[in-house]
Amino acid sequence: MEEVPGAVGTSASFALRLGQTLFSSASLLFMSLGVDFYGYTAFCFLVTVMGLVIPWSFTLALVDVYSVLVKCPLRLPGTMTIIVVGDWVLSFLTLAAACSTASVVDLLLHSNGRCPVKFCSRYQVSATMAFLSWFLSLASSLFNLWLLPSL
Amino acid sequence: MEEVPGAVGTSASFALRLGQTLFSSASLLFMSLGVDFYGYTAFCFLVTVMGLVIPWSFTLALVDVYSVLVKCPLRLPGTMTIIVVGDWVLSFLTLAAACSTASVVDLLLHSNGRCPVKFCSRYQVSATMAFLSWFLSLASSLFNLWLLPSL
Repeated sequence: MEEVPGAVGTSASFALRLGQTLFSSASLLFMSLGVDFYGYTAFCFLVTVMGLVIPWSFTLALVDVYSVLVKCPLRLPGTMTIIVVGDWVLSFLTLAAACSTASVVDLLLHSNGRCPVKFCSRYQVSATMAFLSWFLSLASSLFNLWLLPSL
Repeated sequence: MEEVPGAVGTSASFALRLGQTLFSSASLLFMSLGVDFYGYTAFCFLVTVMGLVIPWSFTLALVDVYSVLVKCPLRLPGTMTIIVVGDWVLSFLTLAAACSTASVVDLLLHSNGRCPVKFCSRYQVSATMAFLSWFLSLASSLFNLWLLPSL
């Protein structure tokens, strides 16, 4: 069985999961601190998706730490399939939420007076963080998918 | 070498490509017929992405027809890799465009007077068609990715 850097149970995977957790948390915080987010469907969607991504990535980060410490990577086909499917679904949801947020922020910026500058820049940062989280999530998904047929 | 239904060169693949071409064309037409689309970044993005998806899917539909007629499916690893990568990139772009359009339409619908009902329902149909196109595009990508390691 080959070793794929970035697949579950390696230190590279831990770094990816940590990045996902951090970026998702940052995205959620920047969005929630603006008090108006529940007025827009896209922003509520982003908050919901980030609320799913944070516990998922954090749990898998803990699994990675445990696997690295006991030097025994997780290689059960059933569990790996669940992880790969979950990763892909969350990756698509994150992309969808990030794009929705970005397009709504763009529209708000171009409609004069509908978005105070302080809030709009927060929303922009939140969308950027969501995109970064998606990027890392996609990397994790690809590495795990690559490993799957060799199990 | 196993035969994967839905991979390039099969009649199932032709059906998927035909569906993608039809839904993308419908999405593009419904969006372009509304004269206001270039005023919104998300709608311009959708038009651009659909302008890429239509020739891509149409070309691959022709390849499928040819392969089915001469009963010799395309199985060159290099070409297949290009098709898989192109499929995935276009699939992500389609999802991004569909989500952006849907969220902007939702925002326009909830801001009174900014969107005539005639245009808004067109935009909604366009976003729905883009989502359907994404769904078929994802199916094609998965089938082709599944075939790739066996080449």
